[in-house]
Amino acid sequence: MSTPKILILGAGYGGLLTTLQLQKKLNYNEAEVTLVNKHSYHYITTWLHEPAAGTASADHARVDLDKIINKEKVNFVKGTVKSIQSEEQTVTLESGEILDYDYLVIGLGSEPETFGIEGLKEYAFSIRSINAVRNIREHIQYMFSKFKQEPDRTDYVTFVVGGAGFTGIEFCGELGDRLPELCEEFDVDPSKVKVYCIEAAPTALPGFDPELVNYAMDVLGKKGIEFKIATPIKQCTPDGVLLATGEEIKAKTVVWAAGVRGNSIVEQAGFEVMRGRVKVDEYLRAPGHENVFVVGDCALIFNEEGRPYPPTAQIAVQEGETLGENLVAIIRGEVTHKFTPHLQGTLASLGKGEGIGQVGSKKLFGSTAAMMKKASDLRYLYKIGGVGLALKKVKL
Amino acid sequence: MSTPKILILGAGYGGLLTTLQLQKKLNYNEAEVTLVNKHSYHYITTWLHEPAAGTASADHARVDLDKIINKEKVNFVKGTVKSIQSEEQTVTLESGEILDYDYLVIGLGSEPETFGIEGLKEYAFSIRSINAVRNIREHIQYMFSKFKQEPDRTDYVTFVVGGAGFTGIEFCGELGDRLPELCEEFDVDPSKVKVYCIEAAPTALPGFDPELVNYAMDVLGKKGIEFKIATPIKQCTPDGVLLATGEEIKAKTVVWAAGVRGNSIVEQAGFEVMRGRVKVDEYLRAPGHENVFVVGDCALIFNEEGRPYPPTAQIAVQEGETLGENLVAIIRGEVTHKFTPHLQGTLASLGKGEGIGQVGSKKLFGSTAAMMKKASDLRYLYKIGGVGLALKKVKL
Repeated sequence: MSTPKILILGAGYGGLLTTLQLQKKLNYNEAEVTLVNKHSYHYITTWLHEPAAGTASADHARVDLDKIINKEKVNFVKGTVKSIQSEEQTVTLESGEILDYDYLVIGLGSEPETFGIEGLKEYAFSIRSINAVRNIREHIQYMFSKFKQEPDRTDYVTFVVGGAGFTGIEFCGELGDRLPELCEEFDVDPSKVKVYCIEAAPTALPGFDPELVNYAMDVLGKKGIEFKIATPIKQCTPDGVLLATGEEIKAKTVVWAAGVRGNSIVEQAGFEVMRGRVKVDEYLRAPGHENVFVVGDCALIFNEEGRPYPPTAQIAVQEGETLGENLVAIIRGEVTHKFTPHLQGTLASLGKGEGIGQVGSKKLFGSTAAMMKKASDLRYLYKIGGVGLALKKVKL
Repeated sequence: MSTPKILILGAGYGGLLTTLQLQKKLNYNEAEVTLVNKHSYHYITTWLHEPAAGTASADHARVDLDKIINKEKVNFVKGTVKSIQSEEQTVTLESGEILDYDYLVIGLGSEPETFGIEGLKEYAFSIRSINAVRNIREHIQYMFSKFKQEPDRTDYVTFVVGGAGFTGIEFCGELGDRLPELCEEFDVDPSKVKVYCIEAAPTALPGFDPELVNYAMDVLGKKGIEFKIATPIKQCTPDGVLLATGEEIKAKTVVWAAGVRGNSIVEQAGFEVMRGRVKVDEYLRAPGHENVFVVGDCALIFNEEGRPYPPTAQIAVQEGETLGENLVAIIRGEVTHKFTPHLQGTLASLGKGEGIGQVGSKKLFGSTAAMMKKASDLRYLYKIGGVGLALKKVKL
C-alpha cells in the first residue's frame, strides 16, 4: 500500500489551517502532504484594508510560509493553479507542472463579484491580495501627487468605495484616518478631498443591528465619508462612476468592495457551483467526489434556515481545522465528523481605536469593539504561528 | 519723496538672496520690499534629485519662508506671476492682483529645455519643483506596484533618464540607491529593473575632467545604470523613447534632465532673450531697463572668453547677494559694484557617500567629494537660515 497523497490548493485561511492540522496530527509517512500557493506567504485577508489605505505596511499583513510550515512534513510548491482534472486526479500549474493526488483540498479563495456592472473589472481596484493592496496604496498617493500638478482636477482626490458591506466600511475607516495624513504630506487642502461610499442595498452593513449601523455611519461621517445608500452603481468608467440615479461622480480611484464569488478555476473544473462556490456536503466534499474537499470562499454551506453563510475568515478557519482532522481520520480508517460552523460574533474596525461588533446578542462599540477585534486577531495568529507571531504582528 | 518699492519675483536662490540681503542691510522705511513666490517655501533645487528618487523626503529639500523672512521688513505675497508690464512698472499675478514697483528683480527660474524633441513636454517628467519631484517619486513606486500585477510589463520597471549632465547623473546616483529598496519592498526581482541614462553629447558630464567622468560612469555602472552616450533621443511617447539610432526603449517612466531655459514670462514681457534668458549687463540689469534686474536661471552672463556661464545655484546666490547690496546703494545714492562670478568649484553627488568634484585644478572622488558637497550645502543653509537651519537639514 502506497502512501496517500494529499494535495492542498491555496494557503489562505482554509488551506493553511488544513495544512497545519495535518502537519500537527500526522505521523511521518502516514501521508504525503503538498501545499501549492501562488506566493511564498500567507496573508491575513481581514487586514488588507489597512495596507490598501496605507495605514499599515503590506508586510504587516503577511506571514512567510517558511515560518509556519514544517518542510519535513509538508512539501511546499510555489505555483499558480491553472486547472483541476478531477477524473485524472491531477492538478496542472501555470508552469506546466502536473501534480497528482489521492485527496484534494480546494482553498483557492475568491474573485470580485461585479454583478455584471459594466467597467468594474477594467477600471476598479479590489482589496484582494498583497500585490493588489500595494497597488491601491500607491495609486492613491500617486493621485495626490498628480493633483498638486493639476489643481483643477478634483477627480484625482475623489475616492469612490463601492459597497458599504464589511470590507467597504472597514476600508472607509482606514481612508478616513489616512487621507488627512496625505493632505499634510502633499500640501493638499483637505476640503478638496472627497470619499463616497456607495451601496445598492437599502442599508449599510446589511445583517448588522441598526444601532451598530448607525454608530458606524456616524463615526465614518465624522471622518468625512459621504454615504449614498440604496444607490446602485450603473457603470464604472476611466473617469469615475455613473449611478442609477443618473448622477456621475468623477473619481480616478474606484475601489470595489461589494462582494466576492468563488474562484473560476473551480467552475472550469466541472464542479457544480453557484456564483463560483461549490455547495459542499456536511464533510466539506464536492458533490459526487468522495476525495475532493472545498474550504473557504469556494465552499458554500447553508444554515438551518436554508440561508448561505457568508464567506468569512472565521468559518474558513473552522473548516480547515475540521477537514484536517477528518483527513487524518480517513487515512487511519477512523470516524470522521460533520462540519458545523460555530459563529463567535462579528467585529468590524472603523479605523484606529474605533469599531463595532456583535457577539451573540451583545453589541459592542468604539474602543471595546476595536480591542475585541485585536484579541480575535491575536488568537488567530497564535493559532497559526504561536506566541512569537502573535506578539510580532498585533499592534497594541 | 515717497519710499521706493522693490519687487522681487521668485524665492529661488537669486530672489531669496536678494531679499535676505535687503532684509539685513536696509533700515526701516528706506524701501518697501515685496517678495512674490508661488509657494510659501523656498526649495533647494540642487537637492531635488533625492526626493525625486525617493531617497529623501520632499520636506527635507524645502525651507518655509516664514522661518527666514522677517515679515516686519519684507511683504510676502504668495502668488503666481502671470505677466510683467515694464512700461507701466507693474506685475500681474494669476489671481488678478497687480503689484507696482520702482525696482524689479526677476528671479523666476527655469523651464525644461526640450530642444524641440517631440513628446517630451507631454510624456516626460522633469526634476523642477517640490510638487514635480513628489510626482516622480510616487510615479516610480506606482509603476513597481503595477508591475506586480502585470509581470510581463517590464516597461513598468524600465526607467529612462534623458541627459547625463549634472542633474541626470545625480538623479541616476539616487535611483541606483533607491531601486534595490523598491525591489525589496515590492518583491520585484532586481534583474527585471533597468535604468538607461541617455545623452546626445559625445560624453557624459560635458565640461568635467575625463578622469572624473570615467569615475562617475564607473560608480553608476556598478549601481546598474546603463549609459547610451552620443545617442540623441528622437521622440518621447507614452510608451517610452525612440532613439536616433532607430532603437526603441519601452519605459513608462522618462525623466528629462537635459537642460533648462529661462522662464517664458520673461520673454513674453518683451525683454530680449536667448533661450528665455536675458543677457544682463554688469549690474545684472536687463538691457534698456535701468530699474529691472534679472538673477538666477533667467539671467545670461558671459565669461571673459565670451562663453555663457551655465545657470547654477552657486552663481545665482552670488548674483542675489551682489544685487541686494547694489539696490541698497542705489536707494542711498551710493556707489554700486559690478558683478563677477567667483567659481568655487563643482561637486556632483553619485548617491550615498559617493561623488565627484573639481575645485580649481584639484579633482575629488568618492567620499571626499560627497563630504565636500555636504560642507557646501551646510554653508548655503547657514547663509540663508543660520546655524539652526544648517543643523536641521544637513544629513551627516
